[in-house]
Amino acid sequence: MNKQITARSKDYAQWYNDLIIKGELADYTPVRGAMVIRPYGYALWENMKEVLDKKFKETGHQNAYFPLLIPKSFLNKEAEHVEGFAKECAVVTHYRLKNSVERNVLEVDPEAKLEEELIVRPTSETIIWNSYKKWIKSYRDLPLKINQWGNVVRWEMRTRLFLRTSEFLWQEGHTAHATSEEAIKETQQILDVYADFAENYMALPVIKGVKTASERFAGAVNTYCIEALMQDGKALQAGTSHFLGQNFAKAFGVQFANKENKQEYVWASSWGVSTRLVGGLVMAHGDDNGLVLPPKIAPIQVVIVPIYRNEEQKEAIDKKADVWLSELRKAGVRAKYDDDETTRPGWKFAEHEKKGVPVRLAVGPRDIENEQVEVSRRDKEGKERYPMDGLVARVQNLLETIQTDMFENAKTFRDEHITAVDDFDTFKKVLDKKGGFISAHWDGTAETEQKIKELTKATIRCIPLNNPQEEGECIFSGRPSKERVLFARAY
Amino acid sequence: MNKQITARSKDYAQWYNDLIIKGELADYTPVRGAMVIRPYGYALWENMKEVLDKKFKETGHQNAYFPLLIPKSFLNKEAEHVEGFAKECAVVTHYRLKNSVERNVLEVDPEAKLEEELIVRPTSETIIWNSYKKWIKSYRDLPLKINQWGNVVRWEMRTRLFLRTSEFLWQEGHTAHATSEEAIKETQQILDVYADFAENYMALPVIKGVKTASERFAGAVNTYCIEALMQDGKALQAGTSHFLGQNFAKAFGVQFANKENKQEYVWASSWGVSTRLVGGLVMAHGDDNGLVLPPKIAPIQVVIVPIYRNEEQKEAIDKKADVWLSELRKAGVRAKYDDDETTRPGWKFAEHEKKGVPVRLAVGPRDIENEQVEVSRRDKEGKERYPMDGLVARVQNLLETIQTDMFENAKTFRDEHITAVDDFDTFKKVLDKKGGFISAHWDGTAETEQKIKELTKATIRCIPLNNPQEEGECIFSGRPSKERVLFARAY
Repeated sequence: MNKQITARSKDYAQWYNDLIIKGELADYTPVRGAMVIRPYGYALWENMKEVLDKKFKETGHQNAYFPLLIPKSFLNKEAEHVEGFAKECAVVTHYRLKNSVERNVLEVDPEAKLEEELIVRPTSETIIWNSYKKWIKSYRDLPLKINQWGNVVRWEMRTRLFLRTSEFLWQEGHTAHATSEEAIKETQQILDVYADFAENYMALPVIKGVKTASERFAGAVNTYCIEALMQDGKALQAGTSHFLGQNFAKAFGVQFANKENKQEYVWASSWGVSTRLVGGLVMAHGDDNGLVLPPKIAPIQVVIVPIYRNEEQKEAIDKKADVWLSELRKAGVRAKYDDDETTRPGWKFAEHEKKGVPVRLAVGPRDIENEQVEVSRRDKEGKERYPMDGLVARVQNLLETIQTDMFENAKTFRDEHITAVDDFDTFKKVLDKKGGFISAHWDGTAETEQKIKELTKATIRCIPLNNPQEEGECIFSGRPSKERVLFARAY
Repeated sequence: MNKQITARSKDYAQWYNDLIIKGELADYTPVRGAMVIRPYGYALWENMKEVLDKKFKETGHQNAYFPLLIPKSFLNKEAEHVEGFAKECAVVTHYRLKNSVERNVLEVDPEAKLEEELIVRPTSETIIWNSYKKWIKSYRDLPLKINQWGNVVRWEMRTRLFLRTSEFLWQEGHTAHATSEEAIKETQQILDVYADFAENYMALPVIKGVKTASERFAGAVNTYCIEALMQDGKALQAGTSHFLGQNFAKAFGVQFANKENKQEYVWASSWGVSTRLVGGLVMAHGDDNGLVLPPKIAPIQVVIVPIYRNEEQKEAIDKKADVWLSELRKAGVRAKYDDDETTRPGWKFAEHEKKGVPVRLAVGPRDIENEQVEVSRRDKEGKERYPMDGLVARVQNLLETIQTDMFENAKTFRDEHITAVDDFDTFKKVLDKKGGFISAHWDGTAETEQKIKELTKATIRCIPLNNPQEEGECIFSGRPSKERVLFARAY
């Protein structure tokens, strides 16, 4: 156990913060609710971005960049959108500072008040649809499939590193289509992209589903989501994809001439994932020694640590390490040789464990004699020795095995934490004692959903896609129900 | 000549806007001074980013992300920094909107006033050095070489697409070092990276130099820059790299224990290039038919246009085009087959010209018979026919030739527009009639610099690196001078 890190069993929230701060993924700042993403955390995010960006481009999307500051009146245009969440946001009211005469400090120049306030974007539907009105005239301009990588600000009252910060980085896709069917297909395609990314890159099993009306994105007709499970039994919404119907097209007057030259309103989708995913990754895989990162997105996949007592031994190890490093890199493996002379091997082991490096190779003088290497994997206990001959190929295989094992491990945990429950007492007990998803009948009303939330803090995470239909009674109201939905407490 | 585009000779400023708007690089928005970077423009920026990011990483820099919103008091900490430019910026004063009861519109909630205003970052020295204080304790923590890709806001009164917008995208590097020498070396290394990028990727010849004291970055000890020349004879500052001395370390109290365990202040650099480079690219290479993009960063390097009268002809061309496309892409060439059936070849030719695609291949039925292809390059008049055999290799060569020719062409123009001048009357005449850089003696005082600026709008763009030393008299004051400096009117 790493002494810098609080045990999960002792204080889960503190454990999570320790992993992030001590693992150097991020740091606090004096700005309320904002954080610094440190180089190691940003390298992880870059790897995630790179995979997603490639997938977006492969599915016909293009990147663009829209303004950060949105006129206040824009947020008014889509009524539900405003009602839903535009309230807690950063408001720019002035455009100049000046030196205060008396006190020699900066103050806001009262003469530089904006006629209309600008809002730091909490999301970009309004500013983007304002441009779409200019760009979309005919069916030939459709579909328009744009993605934006950027920062957004939502003034959250209770913040948590990565999971909920007042500013976060994300991508937001905004597409426009000629038909409802095509927009829905787009929404679902992106959900598949997200699920594939979560499962096959982050090793994070997710459930694809649809949100209930009360949990929908403000302004959406339907919100699709992927839901993951954390080690403390709480759920995490890992990505959402919204079918927006014609709501934004109508709000911004975006019509196109169809093939018969008749004017129709455009159909829309929007979708996003954010740096919150990094938080999910930490919580899903970390242990009491630190981060555990899936090889496919780990900034460093393999670290080589030399163990020596004199310069001669060090030189012999250096020679071998140089060859492996270059071979590993040639094979596309992100490898590092940690030959820092100011720290000892034991310290390095703990450090790389803390940072979740998937594979560690340790080499001492005896290994050089025996032509072998000590290999440790981060996700499981124990060590093995590999012959130097064929080392790189075996390490590559090991990385793949770790990727698969991490997913299977998380999936087993997740599956063991989906509990079918048929009465409200058991519901509450399972929530408190076991946690995880509860599969239960619900009468379909927002009223029941709200009451369950008030009494238990559990929300309906989603109605899974392809949900089996089954007659039953709502666990709360006893009224008839056609299917089970997934409840959980959530981040 | 493209009729959508104003000729340079008629209205240079309008020509520039036409290239950007009609070339679909960017668009106006209702937000004052802000623009949308459209997919084609963003793809160009992405290509530029990718090259630069790789160079930064190769020279040992890591990316990170710091908060967008900076507490007002931070800007106060480095006195010159504030004095220099922190005034015109977006100020966040509130964190919530509310529905107005009477009018059913959103208004700023007066109860959600921030205790301390937040500034949308105009640059990040202050927030970054605040973190560096936490991270730097010992010489072992140095050098710390961090880069950030992000958006910044400076409330410019007179804006121009890409060249000067209230929000822009950029990278800002911020490094910390144990010695002054190392920090200066870093500053110069980055200047070389920028110059290499401008010349070898953007085909934009630049002069490396040092700014005079009055043109320095606020808070810098020395500002290095690269200066380019536009077609109208005005200069463009294309990138800057600042040696910050110990100014920010002292302002934020950042000290480290050296090897003798004594506390010393850290030495710093900061450096940046922005989406302004896109504007420079447009102005340096464009012509009256539209954009002319250098192959290395063009979003589309080669476009293939089919010319046919019937389906049979089309199918024969399709087959060939498919093979070329896949071979070109395999060779790493960004190629597009424009087989849109709703537009004619002539329209396509003008469109791809307008968008600056370096190479166009046109293929008709006779070309299929003769096993050849009509090849046009965007940067020069005239057409050639290439045999289909060996087409891809020849196209690759052509792309390299275009890249070199574009640079040489711009360099010839630039070199012809550096005029050595020895008296103030000629200085003014050259400025008005010929434009470009004027190499002239200056007495070294800020007073003379300021007067020349007031009288002519020309500023000292830089004192070139390795500037030849030469006795002379200041063109304005007649006082003795040891070297010539470069004056120009500038964007």
